[in-house]
This record gives sequence, C-alpha cells and structure tokens, in this order.
Amino acid sequence: MIRGSRYELSGKELPRFLPWVCETLEVDVNPRNVNTPKYPTSIPEPSIQPDFLSALQRLLSPNQIDTNGELRLRHGHGHTQEEMYAIKYTRLGRIPDLVVYPESEAQVTGLVETAKRHNVSLIPYGGGTNVTDALRCNEQERRTIVSVDMRRMNRILWIDRENMMASIEAGAVGRYIMAELKKQGLTMGHEPDSVEFSTLGGWIATNASGMKKNRYGNIEDLVLDVNVATAGGKLERTSASPRESVGLDLRRLMFGSEGTLGIITSAVVKIFPFPEVQKYGSVLFPTFEDGFQFMYDLARKTTPPASVRLVDNLQFQFGLALKPKSSGALADLKSKAEKFFVTKIKGFEPNKMVVCTLVFEGTRTEVEQQQRDVYRIASRHRGMKAGAENGRRGYQLTYSIAYIRDFLMSYYIIAESFETSVPWTKALALCDNVKRLLADEYTRRGLPGKPFVSARVTQIYRTGVCIYFYFGFYYKGIPNPQEIYLELENIARDEILRSGGSLSHHHGVGKLRREFLPKIMSETAIRWKRELKNSLDPTNVFGAGNQGLD
Amino acid sequence: MIRGSRYELSGKELPRFLPWVCETLEVDVNPRNVNTPKYPTSIPEPSIQPDFLSALQRLLSPNQIDTNGELRLRHGHGHTQEEMYAIKYTRLGRIPDLVVYPESEAQVTGLVETAKRHNVSLIPYGGGTNVTDALRCNEQERRTIVSVDMRRMNRILWIDRENMMASIEAGAVGRYIMAELKKQGLTMGHEPDSVEFSTLGGWIATNASGMKKNRYGNIEDLVLDVNVATAGGKLERTSASPRESVGLDLRRLMFGSEGTLGIITSAVVKIFPFPEVQKYGSVLFPTFEDGFQFMYDLARKTTPPASVRLVDNLQFQFGLALKPKSSGALADLKSKAEKFFVTKIKGFEPNKMVVCTLVFEGTRTEVEQQQRDVYRIASRHRGMKAGAENGRRGYQLTYSIAYIRDFLMSYYIIAESFETSVPWTKALALCDNVKRLLADEYTRRGLPGKPFVSARVTQIYRTGVCIYFYFGFYYKGIPNPQEIYLELENIARDEILRSGGSLSHHHGVGKLRREFLPKIMSETAIRWKRELKNSLDPTNVFGAGNQGLD
Repeated sequence: MIRGSRYELSGKELPRFLPWVCETLEVDVNPRNVNTPKYPTSIPEPSIQPDFLSALQRLLSPNQIDTNGELRLRHGHGHTQEEMYAIKYTRLGRIPDLVVYPESEAQVTGLVETAKRHNVSLIPYGGGTNVTDALRCNEQERRTIVSVDMRRMNRILWIDRENMMASIEAGAVGRYIMAELKKQGLTMGHEPDSVEFSTLGGWIATNASGMKKNRYGNIEDLVLDVNVATAGGKLERTSASPRESVGLDLRRLMFGSEGTLGIITSAVVKIFPFPEVQKYGSVLFPTFEDGFQFMYDLARKTTPPASVRLVDNLQFQFGLALKPKSSGALADLKSKAEKFFVTKIKGFEPNKMVVCTLVFEGTRTEVEQQQRDVYRIASRHRGMKAGAENGRRGYQLTYSIAYIRDFLMSYYIIAESFETSVPWTKALALCDNVKRLLADEYTRRGLPGKPFVSARVTQIYRTGVCIYFYFGFYYKGIPNPQEIYLELENIARDEILRSGGSLSHHHGVGKLRREFLPKIMSETAIRWKRELKNSLDPTNVFGAGNQGLD
Repeated sequence: MIRGSRYELSGKELPRFLPWVCETLEVDVNPRNVNTPKYPTSIPEPSIQPDFLSALQRLLSPNQIDTNGELRLRHGHGHTQEEMYAIKYTRLGRIPDLVVYPESEAQVTGLVETAKRHNVSLIPYGGGTNVTDALRCNEQERRTIVSVDMRRMNRILWIDRENMMASIEAGAVGRYIMAELKKQGLTMGHEPDSVEFSTLGGWIATNASGMKKNRYGNIEDLVLDVNVATAGGKLERTSASPRESVGLDLRRLMFGSEGTLGIITSAVVKIFPFPEVQKYGSVLFPTFEDGFQFMYDLARKTTPPASVRLVDNLQFQFGLALKPKSSGALADLKSKAEKFFVTKIKGFEPNKMVVCTLVFEGTRTEVEQQQRDVYRIASRHRGMKAGAENGRRGYQLTYSIAYIRDFLMSYYIIAESFETSVPWTKALALCDNVKRLLADEYTRRGLPGKPFVSARVTQIYRTGVCIYFYFGFYYKGIPNPQEIYLELENIARDEILRSGGSLSHHHGVGKLRREFLPKIMSETAIRWKRELKNSLDPTNVFGAGNQGLD
C-alpha cells in the first residue's frame, strides 16, 4: 500500500501487484521480508570556511542559511537508483556543507560574488528531481559546497496577457506555476512528469521536455528570455522579443547547462489560454508494432493531440497489475466482460496487446477534430477505442511511478528508467536490441530470475520519437545491486547509441552519462565545451561538475 | 524598365511609377538625368602572402582559386545601401585578396588549417545577400583576406523520406534546394526573401527567418544538426536526433554566428511533403489598425496560414504604382470598376486603406479551414476579400524590391529596409514613432522634398510581430547620401529600441548594428561573447569582425 493521499494509488490495496511481480521476475518476493531502509545513513559533518560564513551572514538572514544534516543530505542527491540506494542502504558520500535560500536576484548575485571571493563551490538546486546524478557532489571537492535552493524565488513577476508572456522566478515549481496561471485562465503548458516538484530554472538547465509538447513545445520553444547570475556578473537583456537575430545568443547556452555556468534567476516564458477542453483517451492495439505505425501516421498526417504515449505489452500488464482492489462486483463484471470482448471477439492476445494513451487539449473544435483523426487512423491499424478512463489512469500512473520504484526497493527490487530519442525507422529495432541485450546479459551473469525490461514511446516528432525504458530486477543476495544496475544500464546505453539513438532526449547528461560524451561528439566539440567553461567560469564557482565541466 | 526576364516586372513598362515617386517625395525626378554608376570603381590590388598561396595551391585546384578584381569586389560586400552606393559611386575600401571555392568538407578543414598556420583571415561567403555589412572587410586588416565561397558545396547528401530529414551541404542555394526537393515531392519550407541567392549555411549563420515560418518554422526550428570547420577542428556529432538533452549544445552557437566562429559545411534539416495545395489570398482593410487587429486575432485564435503580411497605405500605393501598363482596355475597366466599389460603395479612403497578403499551404482540408478562418476573422475587422492575384503580386514584389532599389539609385533615390520584432501591444506605437521621427529629422535637416517611410508587418507570432520598414529619399545635390541615410537609420534604430523593439528580427548584427549591442545586453553578456570568441578562435582565423568579434 502506498501511504499518503497525494496519488490515486495512495491508501489503496493492490492485490494483483505482488503476485504479478513474482510471476514476471520469476522470483519469490516475500512481502514480510523487507530490506528496511536505514535512512538517513551516516551524514558527514559540514566543512564551512569561517570567513565565508561570516560574509554569508552579512548577506542573508539566519533563516536563509541551514546546516542541518538531513537537509544537506536531501540537497546532495537526485533520483537515480544509485542515489536512492545509497541514501537508504549505504552512504551518499560527499554532500553539501550548507544550504542557502536566496530570496531575490540581488541576493543570488551577492552569493556568487561572495562564493568567488572565498573560493567556494555553488550548486544550484531546484526540485531535486534529476535522474543524472547532477546534484551529487565531487568526492574530491575540498572547498565548501553550498547548495543554492532556489525555491523561495518562486514569484510570477508579471503576466502580460495581451502579448502572452510571463516573467517567472526560476525557483517556481511547476505545480505552483500551473495553479497560479490557471487562476487567470492561463497555462504555460509545460508538464514534465516531475511537474509537481521541478522548477522553471531546473527545466531550462536540463533542457526539459513536457508531456504536452505537441501543443505547447518543449522548454526551448517556450522560453523567450532568461536572466542568469554568472561568475562574471549578470547575463541579461533589456527586453524579451517574439524572435530575434542578434548574433551569438548566449541565453541559448543555458539550456542543458546543468548548473555549470551560472544560476538562472528568472525567465520570460510564453503563456497560453487555459484550454477550453481537456480530454483523455486510449486505444488498444493488438501489437506494439501496430501502435507504433499508428503513431507514425499521426505524426505525419495530423496535428497530434497534446500528448500521445504508447506502452509495450509488459508495461500494459504492469498497469493492469496496479489496478486497485475493485470497489464492487459490478465493476469487476464490467472489466471481465470487456476483457472477454477484447480477447475473444477481437482476438487480441493478452501477452501481445498494448495501449496508447492520449491527452487532447484545445478549443472544442480542435479537440473534436483531433479525436476524429486519432480514431480514424487508429482503426486503420487495428486499434480499438478503450475509453477516457484508461487514458487518465495511464497518466496518473506516471506520477506515482517514482513512488512505486521506491516502494519496491524495500522488497529487494531495484528499478530505474532511462530514455533516448531516435528517428522513426530505427526505433523498433532499438527497442528490441536493448531488451534482448539486457535479458541476455542478465542471464549471462547468473542474476536471479528474469529482469523487467519494458519500453514506451512517450513523445512523437515528425522526425522520430522519444523512447523510455524501464529496467528492474530482484536483488536479494546481491551485495551491490546499484552497481550491477549501472553496469547493465551502461551496456544498454551503448546499444542505444549503436542503434542510432541519442544519449538523452530530456534527462540530460549530469555525471551519470558524461563518459559517453566522446561517443556522440567530436573531440573539438568536447574541447569547445571545456574552453567555454574555463573562460566563462575560470575558478569553477559553479562546481557541480556535470558533463565533465569541473 | 527592369531588364532581364527573371522577375515579373522585368521588361514591362511602369507608366505610373515615376510620377507617383515624384508626387510622394515631392521632388522632380528627371528620368533623363541619370546618376550613372561607375561600377566597378577602383579595385585594390590583392595582397597575398606567397607561402600561403603555395600551400593553398597544394590543397586546391587552380580553378578553385581566383584573384580577379571584380570577383573579389563582389565578394567584399552584401546589399546594404552604403555598400551599393560605394560600389557604384565611391569605393568599397578593403576587399578580399583572394576568393576560394572549396568542394568538400576535407578541403574546408584543410583551408582552415592552412589559414591558421599562415595567419590568414577567412570570411565564409554564401549568397552575399546580407544587409548588415557582414561581408565588409576590416580596413585595418593587414593579413591576407580570403573569401571562402561555399557555393560549390551544394549537394544534397542524403534524403531520408521516412524520418523526414535531409543532409545538405552548406553552400546549397535556397532556390536549388527548393527545386531539388520538389522533384521528390518534398520541401524544406524555408523561404526568406533572398531564397533565390542565399544559402543554407548563410541562413544558419544569420539566424534567418522564412516567409512561411507559420507552417515550417524559422531556421532554428528546421535544423537538426550542423557540421562546422572551426579553428580547433571539426565540430560534429555522430547522429542527428529528433530532439535531445545532451548538455551545452554548441551547435546552437552557430545560429547568428555570422562567420565569426567557423565555417558551416553541412546541416541536417527537417523536410516536409510538398504541399497538396498552395494558394494566395489578399484582404483589403480600411486602415492599418484594422488590418493589425485582424492579424492579432489570427495569431491568437487560429493556426495562421503559411504567410501573412500587412503593408501600410504608402506601401499599398507603392504596389499600385508598380502595376505594369495594362494589357488591354478590359483589364483597365475591371480595375476601375473594382476601385469604384472599394472607395465609393465600401467607403475605404484611398490614402488610408491597406492590404494584407496571404499564402496558404497544406492539405486541401487545412487550406480550406484556414481560408474560412481568415475571411471570417477579416470580416469582423472590416476586411474585404481582394483575391488571389493581388496576393500573388504582393509576394512577387518582394523578390524584385532589391532591383527596384538599385534602379532608383541611378535616379538619385537612395533607399533601404530595416526590421525589428516587437510584442503586439507596442507595435503600432513603434511604427508611428519611427515614421514621425524620421520625417521630423528629415525636415529638420532641410533635406530635399519628403522622405519615403513605410512599414509592414511581415511575420506574426503569438507574442508579437516582425515589422519591416522601408526608408528612402531623393539625394540629388547631397554629396554623401549613404552617410546621411545611415545617420537617419541609426536614429530610427534608437527609437525602435526605445519603443520596445529588438535590434533585429532576422537581418542580424554584422558590422552595421554592432554599436547597438551594449544597448540590448548586459556588460557580462558582451564580455561572454568576447571571451567565447577568444577561447574558440584565439588567433581570429575567422576575421569577419561581425558583432565586434575581431
């Protein structure tokens, strides 16, 4: 049972889940045998340069400076499996010595100046939701490490309804931005799966992608201007324009900068009218290939709905296994009747069928047009309408997936996601290759039972797709599952690159994938990045060390 | 009469044009009093370092190296009014010493290496259509200056129809790309007004905007990958992806780089099916404000047609004055009847009315939908359908405008365009302010007659518009019209910035606008640009000197 009330699955019994997990992984998960987390594991003492602390105390109020151990620990990691495993069972290693909460651009600028003067390292912190070890501290760092938590800088500075722009501080959390804009009948339309926690500044720094990018664009399409506190002063412009050609645009460097070049303090973003209509939808397909061809047609021949996702059969089953205990006999009956129709009448095989989930947003006319397009094209690919409720559940599941992962870790199951983008024609082979390779490698190593390897298509472009993998396994008896996991993920990543996929569609590089950079770009490109870092932050004030830029 | 046969106006008599010009400028243009161009004016001797020339001769064939004077002159300028005036009547100053024509990426790389070794300056050359003095050579440059004409590298390297991408060499000219892709039922959809001459590499280097960006996007939306020969080697990636998050993306620095960081050798771009339907359209509005509000609604409430443009009354009259001598009495009658209807029945005032021209592209259904939207919204703003032919003529006029400008220069009329982007709510005031300021300043200086100052809206975004100004005047008796022009343009530019406009929407910075950079970005931003240039091209091999990066 998932505790709390935030998620739909919270507080519900999931009677089918554990049996399904046992069956799929071919292991015997004992619900009474819990790998109890030791959180918090040992927390290193902070090492703070006294003269820096004095300077800081002149700049900020006492309630903006914190040295609490658990707080520092929380600021020293994101959400990779290794990080989660480390904070629960082993030890995180070097963590920030200090957490500060600036409340204005002037304070951020002052902080950067002070850090420079005292040779201290700053690591900007947004929602802490990254999955690239972007927040992990360098073990070798001897300077004081300051985590700069931006979340008190969360104001919407202005909204310009006529020109459809808003200026928002970088620490504003997605959920808050959504709620505030909605009050005014507006939306920014950027909804990564982390939207409940992640921040505007974090979105820019990781070059984030939103679930509804078909309608609103990805973060690089949404940001018109960005203000940054750098080691050399403020990077800013006098005004935000619809579109410009004003030479080298340094603001573009902030997308994917992962904390290495400065602290983003605010941005001007596009806004949109809150959609007249929002609707979920879903379509069942007999096979993944059918669903994939449907998506290809959708991307090529229509303006696709705000979001379109296709899960493979294993993930489809996973979703079914997570259905809560039903609320009555009638619901059960309906579900059985539906199942009979799909499998017996339509002839869909339970171990092959897949589901595509959809979000439609726009004016009533737009949504109606898109629904017509979707279901017309789906029927050409043997698709069968499966209703709004299944669509809604699919998206809800996304929000709770991180919790399910954490929950499973206590039952000796370690799991994680990783993603890529790839041209259409290479996508199916890429999925097959990665799945096969991981299964083979897993068996070759004599690891327990079978691994869980599942793929979904989470974004479509005219030129290709984003593929999202889930990989997990039963780790009881394995002393270092987090390391085994990483080895296998790296093997999968190599296969992704060989199969024509990118290093990442939206997660980014951080420290987790920095070793792969020479495999995707020329030596000159690597050197340019290094030279750029050296010249723009010569003393490495922004010492996050991502992408090898330390 | 415009000679040749390339343009619709070529070889036609324009009986109304000169009288209209005289009336508008309140001057007496005498068609027999020609300011005969002295082209080519004096051409400086080339200064070529002999050891560099020897090295070059080992690298390239004789037919790839040229020192011809007129050729060097042509490679030493773009199309600003000062440049046109200089090559016709005064002197261009420093020009390239040598023109080379590389034919492969390897030759470009070799060229850069050789230039570095011999301390020579390279200036990449595409179509030569820039209007920012981007190609003008630094008078103080003592090194040999080599113009690297990329137009022999014009191959389409591959077309991937399934993933809708193509890899194209940077020297391919827009018109050629269009023609080649059209043969395959495809289009890139990028059509700047210079498309007949400008190149893919030039589009990236200036961050170009295409007329049909509403459907296809601007250049930054169209390019998936770019290969560059830099002073430190090749900037390249192993594959092109639909979308990525792979850290600092150096490729993005090439947009707007204006030749200062390297030579773009090829790019992977998005391609689209050649549209099923292409249609022109036009709508008359009683005033510019009506037309402007129509465009605002169009941007906010619809997916706008591929192109939408709105010219002010003066430009509308200019278009009418350029109508060729009609082909018969019937055509004249029809035109008179139309005029009667518009002015007498509808009550549009000839000196206030304006026209909006449209290009629709897409599937038949899309185009029909857009046409319905356009004419429905237009009617709410007192718009009156004015037919496809007027729309077509409007766009044709754009292509010949540079020729009309050159033609007029011989009759003592100097003219030029400049542009900006600006949020919707500031656009009308910006137009008024710039027009008034230029007229006032012109009068204050006691210059002859009245100036021509006209504006049009050439692009719409949800957040604002691109405004394009034409400015011209009669210069007989003025010894330095090109300097007077520039002074006035700079005064106008200051007013644009004060009125909330950007430094440029798509023309760029070059040398013409580099003095304005400190007015639009912080000191830190300027310093970052300088540091970036110093670290990526420490010996200034790419010595074009644009944006002050020399």
